[in-house]
Amino acid sequence: MAYALDLARRGPAHGPNPQVGCVLLAPAPGPDAPGIFARDVLAVGWHRGAGTPHAEADALARAEAAGVDVRGATAVVTLEPCNHTGRTGPCAQALLDAGVGEVVVSVSDPNPVAAGGAEHLRAHGVEVRTGLMLDAGEELLRVWLASVRLGRPFVTLKTATSLDGCVAAADGSSRWITGPESRGHAHGVRATVDAILVGSGTVAADDPTLTARPATGEADDHERSSTTPVHQPLRAVMGERAVPDDARIRGDDGRFVHLTTHDVHEALARLAALEVRHVLVEGGPTVATAFVTAGVVDEIHSYVAPVLVGEGRRVVGALGGQSIDDAVRWSTSTVQRLGDDVLVVARAVRPPP
Amino acid sequence: MAYALDLARRGPAHGPNPQVGCVLLAPAPGPDAPGIFARDVLAVGWHRGAGTPHAEADALARAEAAGVDVRGATAVVTLEPCNHTGRTGPCAQALLDAGVGEVVVSVSDPNPVAAGGAEHLRAHGVEVRTGLMLDAGEELLRVWLASVRLGRPFVTLKTATSLDGCVAAADGSSRWITGPESRGHAHGVRATVDAILVGSGTVAADDPTLTARPATGEADDHERSSTTPVHQPLRAVMGERAVPDDARIRGDDGRFVHLTTHDVHEALARLAALEVRHVLVEGGPTVATAFVTAGVVDEIHSYVAPVLVGEGRRVVGALGGQSIDDAVRWSTSTVQRLGDDVLVVARAVRPPP
Repeated sequence: MAYALDLARRGPAHGPNPQVGCVLLAPAPGPDAPGIFARDVLAVGWHRGAGTPHAEADALARAEAAGVDVRGATAVVTLEPCNHTGRTGPCAQALLDAGVGEVVVSVSDPNPVAAGGAEHLRAHGVEVRTGLMLDAGEELLRVWLASVRLGRPFVTLKTATSLDGCVAAADGSSRWITGPESRGHAHGVRATVDAILVGSGTVAADDPTLTARPATGEADDHERSSTTPVHQPLRAVMGERAVPDDARIRGDDGRFVHLTTHDVHEALARLAALEVRHVLVEGGPTVATAFVTAGVVDEIHSYVAPVLVGEGRRVVGALGGQSIDDAVRWSTSTVQRLGDDVLVVARAVRPPP
Repeated sequence: MAYALDLARRGPAHGPNPQVGCVLLAPAPGPDAPGIFARDVLAVGWHRGAGTPHAEADALARAEAAGVDVRGATAVVTLEPCNHTGRTGPCAQALLDAGVGEVVVSVSDPNPVAAGGAEHLRAHGVEVRTGLMLDAGEELLRVWLASVRLGRPFVTLKTATSLDGCVAAADGSSRWITGPESRGHAHGVRATVDAILVGSGTVAADDPTLTARPATGEADDHERSSTTPVHQPLRAVMGERAVPDDARIRGDDGRFVHLTTHDVHEALARLAALEVRHVLVEGGPTVATAFVTAGVVDEIHSYVAPVLVGEGRRVVGALGGQSIDDAVRWSTSTVQRLGDDVLVVARAVRPPP
C-alpha cells in the first residue's frame, strides 16, 4: 500500500479526480500463504488526471501490454475502485473482467456517485479488504475527501501579514511585507490548486496576474521536467465590481471566471460546477473576512513576516464573534521557515462528519 | 575556547555581569610547539553571577586549591579580562600575579569601565590574542554586549497574538489565545531576564503575578536541581496610574518597582540604575507600542496562535510610520513550534555601532 500511495502521488494534486495508485500483485501461492508482502509485483498504475485512465485501468493496461497474466492477482488500490461510468468505465467491473482475485483498499469512496465498487466486487466473489494504511490514504486524499464530504470546494485561505496581522501599511504599501521566499512558495502552491479567488476590489487595486510559477527547490518535482508547463489554475474574481477588459487576471487562456456575487456559498457552488475541488482564496481582506465568517475556510496558509506595522490594513475585519470562545479554531499542521518569514499551515477544527 | 564557552554557559544568563568561562592550559612545551589544542587542562572556572569571583579568579583559585602550578600557563577566556576593581579585584592583574604566560580571548570588553585588560597584560609582557571564536563568543554575550554598547537594558518584547495580531477579542477575553506550551515557555524565559515590565493598565486589568516558574523540558538545565529556587526577575510597572497596595505584582520579596513615567527612555534609565541588563516587556499594547515607537526593542518573542479573532484588541497601536518602508524591521532568529502555537524570535536590524 505504501508503494501504491507513492504511485498515487505521481498524479496531479489539482483537478476534479483524486490521486490514486494501484499495484497488481501475483496470486497467493496457496491458501496458507502469508500476507501480501512477499508477492511479486505484476504491474503498477496511477491516475494522471481527469480524462485519463484510472489507476486500476492503467495498471491492467500495462499488464496486458507486457503480456502478464493477472488472473487471481491481488489489486492494492489507495481508493475504493469506482462503480460508475464517467469519462472512463467503472474500475470495479474492469478488475472483475480481468479476473483479479482479491482487492485491498485504503480509503473507501465517500462519493455517492462513484461508490459501491467494493460491494460490486464482493457480490461477484472477489475478496475485498478496506482500511489498510487508512491514515496515510486519507492524508493523501485530504483535500479531495473533504471536498466530496462537504459537497463544495476545499478552501485554503492564504494570508501574508506582519506579526501584528497587517497586510499593508496605512498608506496601502504592501509590496514588501513578506519576502521573496514566501512569494516563491505561494506561487508553487498555486500550481497545486484548481482555482485562485480574489475580490474585485483587489483586482481594481493591484491588477494581479495570479499565474502559477514553478516552485523552486521542491523535493517532489522529480516527475516534472523544466519543459513541462506549470498547471495554471482557474482565476476567479468574486464581487460585483466590473473587471476591466484589460485586467491582467483575464489572461489569454480562457481560464478566468467572474463570480458576480457577494455570497460565499453561491461562489463556491459556481466553482464546484466548474469542477473545482480546491480553491485558494488570496484576498483581499473583504473576501478573506467573508470566507472566514461563512465558516468555510478549511485550511489557512499564513505567511508571517517579522515586522510590526501598527495602524495598517488588517488581514481580516469583524468576524461576528465577540469573545475568544467564538473565534474559529485551527490546529497547526506544519510550520516552515521561509527566509525571514514563517509559513504556518493550520487546519480548521470541525466535528467529524 | 569551545570548552570555555561551555563553562561560561553554566553561569546565570540574568544579572548585571556577563557569562564568562576560563580554561587554564599547561605552558607550551617549547617555542616550536603547535597551538594550544593538545595541551593539558590545569584548571577551569566560570562566573556564577554578581558578587562571586570572575571566571579567571575562579580558575586560579581552583588551581591553587589543587596545588597546580600555573606559571607560564595559557589562559583561554571568553571575554577580555577586566582591568578594574568592582565587587572583585581586576582579573588582568590576578593573571599577571599568578604568572600566566599567555592569554587567549574571544570577545574584547566594550565596557569602558572595565576594558583595558589586554593592554595591561601586554604592557607587562604577556602575549594576548583576541577574537578566537568571535561569532560564538558574541552570540553567547549578545544581550550583555548590546546592553553595554547601547548604554541601556536590552529590551525583549513578548507578544502573544492570534494570526491577525490580536491579543484579545473585542470583549477583552484573551485567556486562551495562546496555549499552555507557549505560556510554559514564556515562564521559562522570565527566569533568564533581570526585569519584567508591564503597564499600569495591565496591572489594573489583569492583576498579574509575573513570577517565573521553572521551564519544563529545557535542554540546558543540567546545572539546576529541582530544589534550586528559580531566579525571580524584578517586577516593574510603568505608567502613572497607581498600583494598588494589594496588587499581586508587588509580591513579598521586595523585587518590585513602579516607574511612574510614560517616557520609555526614562524608564530604561531607571532600570539600568537598578543593574538591569535585560528587560522583558510583556505589555499590554500601550506599553508595547511605546517601546516599538521609541525604537528600543532589540528582540521580539512573538507567540502566535492559529486563530483569527477579527475585531479584537491589537498587539500594537499606531507606530507613527506611514508605509512599509517606515516599519521597524527584524531578522528572524529562531522559529519554534509550541503545541499549536509558533514562537518567532526576531532581532532588530540596526546598523552596526
